[in-house]
Amino acid sequence: MKKIILREDEMPTRWYNVVPDIPGGLQPPLDPETKEPMGPEKLSAVFPMALLEQEMSSEPWIDIPEEVLEVYKIWRPSPLVRARKLEEALGTRAKIFFKNEGVSPVGSHKPNSAVAQAYYNKREGVKRLATETGAGQWGSALSLATSKFGLECKVYMVRVSFDQKPYRKSIMQTFGADIVASPSQDTNTGRAILEKDPDTPGSLGIAISEALEDAAIHDDTNYALGSVLNHVVLHQSIIGLEAKKQMEIAGEYPDVIVGCCGGGSNFAGLLAPFVPDYLEGKKIRFVGYEPASCPSMTAGKLAYDSGDVAMMTPLLYMYTLGHDFMPPGIHAGGLRYHGMAPIVSALIRDNIVEPKSVHQLECFEAGVLFAKTEGIIPAPETTHAIRGAIIEAMKDPDEPKTILFNFSGHGLIDMAAYDSYFAGELHDYSYPKEQIEKSLARLPNVSKTDEID
Amino acid sequence: MKKIILREDEMPTRWYNVVPDIPGGLQPPLDPETKEPMGPEKLSAVFPMALLEQEMSSEPWIDIPEEVLEVYKIWRPSPLVRARKLEEALGTRAKIFFKNEGVSPVGSHKPNSAVAQAYYNKREGVKRLATETGAGQWGSALSLATSKFGLECKVYMVRVSFDQKPYRKSIMQTFGADIVASPSQDTNTGRAILEKDPDTPGSLGIAISEALEDAAIHDDTNYALGSVLNHVVLHQSIIGLEAKKQMEIAGEYPDVIVGCCGGGSNFAGLLAPFVPDYLEGKKIRFVGYEPASCPSMTAGKLAYDSGDVAMMTPLLYMYTLGHDFMPPGIHAGGLRYHGMAPIVSALIRDNIVEPKSVHQLECFEAGVLFAKTEGIIPAPETTHAIRGAIIEAMKDPDEPKTILFNFSGHGLIDMAAYDSYFAGELHDYSYPKEQIEKSLARLPNVSKTDEID
Repeated sequence: MKKIILREDEMPTRWYNVVPDIPGGLQPPLDPETKEPMGPEKLSAVFPMALLEQEMSSEPWIDIPEEVLEVYKIWRPSPLVRARKLEEALGTRAKIFFKNEGVSPVGSHKPNSAVAQAYYNKREGVKRLATETGAGQWGSALSLATSKFGLECKVYMVRVSFDQKPYRKSIMQTFGADIVASPSQDTNTGRAILEKDPDTPGSLGIAISEALEDAAIHDDTNYALGSVLNHVVLHQSIIGLEAKKQMEIAGEYPDVIVGCCGGGSNFAGLLAPFVPDYLEGKKIRFVGYEPASCPSMTAGKLAYDSGDVAMMTPLLYMYTLGHDFMPPGIHAGGLRYHGMAPIVSALIRDNIVEPKSVHQLECFEAGVLFAKTEGIIPAPETTHAIRGAIIEAMKDPDEPKTILFNFSGHGLIDMAAYDSYFAGELHDYSYPKEQIEKSLARLPNVSKTDEID
Repeated sequence: MKKIILREDEMPTRWYNVVPDIPGGLQPPLDPETKEPMGPEKLSAVFPMALLEQEMSSEPWIDIPEEVLEVYKIWRPSPLVRARKLEEALGTRAKIFFKNEGVSPVGSHKPNSAVAQAYYNKREGVKRLATETGAGQWGSALSLATSKFGLECKVYMVRVSFDQKPYRKSIMQTFGADIVASPSQDTNTGRAILEKDPDTPGSLGIAISEALEDAAIHDDTNYALGSVLNHVVLHQSIIGLEAKKQMEIAGEYPDVIVGCCGGGSNFAGLLAPFVPDYLEGKKIRFVGYEPASCPSMTAGKLAYDSGDVAMMTPLLYMYTLGHDFMPPGIHAGGLRYHGMAPIVSALIRDNIVEPKSVHQLECFEAGVLFAKTEGIIPAPETTHAIRGAIIEAMKDPDEPKTILFNFSGHGLIDMAAYDSYFAGELHDYSYPKEQIEKSLARLPNVSKTDEID
C-alpha cells in the first residue's frame, strides 16, 4: 500500500496535551509590565476562556468539539505516505514516511488550529477575529476557519507580502476576510509608524501589535495566533495522533521523528503523542530542523522574551534570538520567527528534542528531489523537514531505520521562491552572530530567568 | 459521513470506454490533406501504438497498467463529498455531491491522462514528450507525469501565459520540464511567426503546431494532448468509476450529472460509466456547462474540423466554433477551446448529453459561495460546474433530487482570476455571433460532413 488513510470514523476525537509529560515542566507566561505570572483574567481581553484553559491545562486529553471535527473532515484525516521513490533515489535502507498536511484547502497544517480557535471564539459570543500574517499561510487558514463559523476576520498582512503575494490576499478575500497592509491607518500603532516612515515594508512584529490593538479596542473582537502557544500545539496534536494510528496500521514505529521549526507547532503536533512512549523507555529520537539564518533553537538563549517587537504579548519562556532580531529574507517566511514554542523549548532543555539547523539552498535541492520522486512540490518551509529526513536517512544508509516527518504544506502558492531558486538568485546566509548577540542583549530583564536558565 | 473515500485496494483497475455505448457511433478522424479516414500508421509518428489502439478501441474495459496505478496512488482514490453546507446556503432539498479531483499534486484532473500517456510512451521507447499548454494545467500535469517515468518534457507555453503565470512555469520547472514561450525560436512555425510579428502574445493554436512539429522532427519525441481525444476521455473514466462506487457506498444514485466543458474530458470521464445505466432505462440526466463566450456545444456546428489553427491535427467530427475562432479572454483559460471532444459531441447528437452555457460572473459568484460554504476554492473552470449544479438544484428547490458534479480542480494557482473578479474588472461577454459565423464559414470542406450533420 502506498498511502495509509484512516476512515473518518477512525479520526481522533481528542487532542493530546503533551505539557504534563514535560519532565521539567513549563514556566508560566509573565505580564510584560509587572514581570509577574499572568493569569487568565488579563488575557481574556483578547482570548476566549476555553482557549486560555487549554493554554494552562495539565489534562493529557481534551475533547475535540463535534463542530470542529466536522470542519476537519473537509480534508482530514490526512494521508500517511511511504516515500519509496525518495528512498530509492537516495539509495538508503531507511524507510521514510511522511504525514501529508498539504491536503488542507489552504495547503498547510495551519487550519488544524485556526478552525478550533474560530469555533471557541464563536461559542463565547465573539463576532470578529483580528490576526497578523506574514507570508499568508496563517491568514489564509484563519480566513477559511472564520468563514465556516460565520465570524468576521481582519488580517494585518505585512506590507511587503501584501504587495508581493497578491494570491494569498485573494485567497483570504475569497473566504470573506478583510485584509489590510500593515502598518495600516486602522490602528494607533500603524498610524504612528506610517507617520515616521511612510514607505516601511512592515514586519511581523508590527502586524502582531496592530492585531492586538485591534482586539483590545473592539469589544466584539478577539485575537488569534497561529503558532508558539500551548493551545496551538494542542490542536496540532491531531497530526501526531493520526500518524501514530497510521504507523501502527503500516506495522511500523518511527526511530526518528523529524519536523521543520518556525514557531514550532507543526513539529510539536506531530511528536506530542510519541513522547509518552519515549518516557517509558522506547528508543525514539525527535529532531527539529530550523533555518541556519534564523537559529532560535541552535543559537538562541532559553529565556523569558516577548513574542513581538513592540513587547505587547506576555513574556514567554522560550529559546529566542531576541524579540527585535531581524532574520534575513530567506524564502521560508514561515520559519522566520525569533522565538520557539515554549513546549518545544522545554523539550529541548530536557534533552528530548534535538535541535538542528540547515541552509536554504540544500533545502530547495531536497524539495526539488522530493517533487521529482514523490510527485508533490513542498512549501519552502517543508523543504527543511525533507532535508532533515534525508540527513537522518543518509547518516548510515545501510542501517535500517524508520523515519517519520511532517510534510507541513505544499508549495503551489509559493512558487515564486522556486523561481528565485532556479534563477540562481538565492544564497545561503552565514550565521548572523553579531546581530544575535545584539538582540539577545536587549532581552527583557526578568530576574527569574537566571535561576532557571 | 462527510466524505466517502475508497481504500487503495478498492480503486478501479480498468478504465471504462464509453465509445461502444454511443448509439450513433463515432465518425473516424480524417487526414487533413486527403480528407480520408486516418489509420494508426500515420498517427504513429507522434503517438505510441498503445494510445492509438485505445483511441480506436471498441472494447468497453481496458486494464490500467500497474505502473500507472502506482502513480495514481500519489493522490487517488479521490474523495466524494456531500456539499451539505452549500445545500443549506441554497435552501434546496437537493442532495449535492462532488467528486474532488483537486487533490492531485497539480490541483486538477489532468494527471489522470498525463500519467497514462507518459507511461505508454516510456514503454514504447520514447525518450521525450512535446506538448503545448495555455493556462498551464496540462503542462504541469505532463511535467509531473514525465518526471515519474524518467522522460524529458518540452512544453510550448502560450507567451501571454508564460509572461503572466510565472508560478505555473516554475511548477513545470520543479518537475524537470523544459519550458519555452510560444511562438519560440525552436521550431520553423515559431520562427516564421516571430519574424512577421515579434510581439505576438501567442495562441494555443500556435503552441499545438510547434509541439507537433517538435515531435515530428525529433525521432525520440512524441506528442501529448490533454483533452478532446478518445484516449484522454478513457483515462478520465477513473473519475466516474470511483464516483459510482462511492455513490453506491453513500446509498445514492445521481439524478443529474454535471460538469464543466472545455475540451470535454473531465465531464466525459465522470459520466462515462453511468451511460450504460441510462441506456438500460435508468432516469439520469447528463448536463455539460460551457462558457457563454466560447459556446462550442450550444452555438457551434457538428462538423469535421481541425484541432488547431494551423490545421496540422487530424480532422475530428465534433461540435466546433471553427478552428480559428478566437474566444474572448475569459478567466477560465481551460474552457477557451473552439471544439468539443468527439465523444461528448456524439452524446449530444444522440440526445444523451444536454449542453448548456453560463456567464463568467455568475460562475465566480458560485465559486465564492462554494469556497465560503464548503471551504475549498475552485478553479475558474470548475466554477462553471458549480454554477451548473446550483442551477440544477434551484430549478425546483422543493423537489428532492441527487446531483453529482465534478470538482475538476482547485483555484489556489489561479487566484489572479479572483483578484480581477473582486476588483470588478471582469465582465460578461455577449454571444459572439458574428465571429462564430465567420469562423464557421472557414470550416474545412469535407463532403462527408453534410450527409451526417
